[in-house]
Amino acid sequence: MLRNLTNVRGIKCWGAHIGIKSMRRDLAIIYSEVPASAAATFTLNEVVAEPVKVSRENVADGKAQVIVCNAGNANACTGRQGREGAEAMVSATAETLGIDPELVLVASTGLIGEPFPTEDVVNGIRTNMEKLSDDSKAGSLVANAILTTDTFAKEGFLEFEMDGTTINLAGIAKGSGMIHPNMGTMLAFIVTDIAIEPDVLNTAVHEAVDDTFNMITVDGDTSTNDMVAVMANGMAGNEPITSTDDERYQLFFANLRELMAHLAKLIVSDGEGCSKYIAYRVTGARDRETARKLVRAISSSILVKTAMFGRDPNWGRIVGAAGNAGVPFDHTKVDLSIGSEDVAVPVLEDGRPMEFDRNNVKRLLRESHISVHMELHDGEAEAEGWGTDLTTDYVIFNSVYTT
Amino acid sequence: MLRNLTNVRGIKCWGAHIGIKSMRRDLAIIYSEVPASAAATFTLNEVVAEPVKVSRENVADGKAQVIVCNAGNANACTGRQGREGAEAMVSATAETLGIDPELVLVASTGLIGEPFPTEDVVNGIRTNMEKLSDDSKAGSLVANAILTTDTFAKEGFLEFEMDGTTINLAGIAKGSGMIHPNMGTMLAFIVTDIAIEPDVLNTAVHEAVDDTFNMITVDGDTSTNDMVAVMANGMAGNEPITSTDDERYQLFFANLRELMAHLAKLIVSDGEGCSKYIAYRVTGARDRETARKLVRAISSSILVKTAMFGRDPNWGRIVGAAGNAGVPFDHTKVDLSIGSEDVAVPVLEDGRPMEFDRNNVKRLLRESHISVHMELHDGEAEAEGWGTDLTTDYVIFNSVYTT
Repeated sequence: MLRNLTNVRGIKCWGAHIGIKSMRRDLAIIYSEVPASAAATFTLNEVVAEPVKVSRENVADGKAQVIVCNAGNANACTGRQGREGAEAMVSATAETLGIDPELVLVASTGLIGEPFPTEDVVNGIRTNMEKLSDDSKAGSLVANAILTTDTFAKEGFLEFEMDGTTINLAGIAKGSGMIHPNMGTMLAFIVTDIAIEPDVLNTAVHEAVDDTFNMITVDGDTSTNDMVAVMANGMAGNEPITSTDDERYQLFFANLRELMAHLAKLIVSDGEGCSKYIAYRVTGARDRETARKLVRAISSSILVKTAMFGRDPNWGRIVGAAGNAGVPFDHTKVDLSIGSEDVAVPVLEDGRPMEFDRNNVKRLLRESHISVHMELHDGEAEAEGWGTDLTTDYVIFNSVYTT
Repeated sequence: MLRNLTNVRGIKCWGAHIGIKSMRRDLAIIYSEVPASAAATFTLNEVVAEPVKVSRENVADGKAQVIVCNAGNANACTGRQGREGAEAMVSATAETLGIDPELVLVASTGLIGEPFPTEDVVNGIRTNMEKLSDDSKAGSLVANAILTTDTFAKEGFLEFEMDGTTINLAGIAKGSGMIHPNMGTMLAFIVTDIAIEPDVLNTAVHEAVDDTFNMITVDGDTSTNDMVAVMANGMAGNEPITSTDDERYQLFFANLRELMAHLAKLIVSDGEGCSKYIAYRVTGARDRETARKLVRAISSSILVKTAMFGRDPNWGRIVGAAGNAGVPFDHTKVDLSIGSEDVAVPVLEDGRPMEFDRNNVKRLLRESHISVHMELHDGEAEAEGWGTDLTTDYVIFNSVYTT
């Protein structure tokens, strides 16, 4: 069996069916035997789900020991009833485990505006906690229990050496199939046995999320429930990392970023009704923020997305979308190439259209993995991002389903 | 015949076929017998077409006498050759008319990145200038000569009394059918015989554009060529308006805004591959900018647009999109109603889902004109905007057409 969350020292999980969804597991629990350093990022949507509010408070002290997530009900736009439901999730978990409520993080995903099924969730927590297990099977169940319209579970594991010990890092995620209204919640839960101070972990998590989960786009909207949470329980026994200046920080950061990028790309791959996965790279920018904004503007442009669906090497739409990013760049210096994962065809050089074999490029764009690379010749900074095409299927999926 | 540009005192026009497009008129000339106060707004895209650069310089002094626009070639991403082409348009026009080149505004719309057909355009200007006419027919031809993928010509005319004289105000526009790559240029040319100082006109034009053309969205991208230009030649003989404090300014502004709103809505109605026209209103906002941002975020959300196509009264997507606007609002106080042009059905009150007859609302949403109204209960400011749905036809149109 592939390695997963349960291969991180001290981590136990369970994924249960508690009846919020009719046929699938809908309660996920990820537990660390000891309290862990913890950090999280949350949705930037102005409308915030109740579990997000609760977890934001509980993670503020940089500590957590358990993450509990239900699927099938987002507990968003639910008012006081929802707030009390999220708090009941916390207290039932803390009570059953005999830990401080502040060590509990909660998350929800599913329909918004529906009353929160507090009783089912609280009972589910009470009865399933004893099933927590470090068996690989449990790691696989928990990855499935956070899914909504996702078509496959998203997992990742990697390990690296530090201070003569092996550090394990594992995560699960759910993505942005948007068939159901506002079920596009992006969730990722990551655990590691590295020893690291909470504030250093916090910096790493925010920077890595900026580079990865914040650089994917399926439909451009953030949900009310988005959350990425990381627990680092220190059980690997390395000398704790206490500063971002520590050279071991870079090693940890690179691995954390790699795991997050892996999970982020899986989310894009599972964008419902999408036929292509497109990697965008902007290089030669004056600064990183410029490169990031360009990647985001291009990858979220409806016109670029439809061109990709149509296998159209339409540099005009790409340059036009870049022009909408709100950052200055000199389009007369831009090089642009479009192609498959392996073969890139230059279509613009110094801002001038190149002669290219259009049929050849259209053939390359038939592949499911596409790459677009823009070089600005204006500096050294770069950014990468991942998106989907916009297909007729996407429109059908998102229009025929009603609340 | 309906009144048009030629019913404004001193205005002559012509719309000619000069061969850039195979079957349709592609050169538009709008001329005032006397130099006019002039003001214009231009695309905010970082990539700016050559005629936009030239016109921006020429309108800076607040004076213009003629607007010349070709269709079929956008003269964007064309480098030095394009710049020289735009300048040749200006000098050929000035020479033929015997006026100062700084009184010439030029515009282009069509394919980007194609060499500009300078010779055809210059010859077309030289041979067609003598056809300028104040006959209604000429006004109709010029409205057609700026079109690209538009399915109908967009014209408006209105008049009002001031200082015992009649002020005439007329305009033409082209829109945002996006079948061809980057042919979504939004152009509007407006003429009036009111006497108004250039700086006062400039204020009026910018404010009215913000309320109208800047509040429509079909696919969210601005083009390299967008331009709204207004000439006011003073031939109505009113006492010139020299200040925005003058109460007659408000009268002029209200009429200018009304004409622009009319043209803007026509553009949305002609969004290619769209099945619905949707009017969005946000009221009770703390300030106008908040209301404007909410309207824009909701009307440009892919998820809201697909829900509209699916006739789905999906309040969750609307609230979620509002949450992405980047402005604070309290979703627990929001009222939301969705319906046809005439009948609005409350779906949220104080942020709480209302019971409503879903089938009845779905029936209302079959109509081609839809209205969405969000009340924030947070102040007195409001904004309005107009958008389209996102249809399978839209995706097909925008994907099968190749550069």
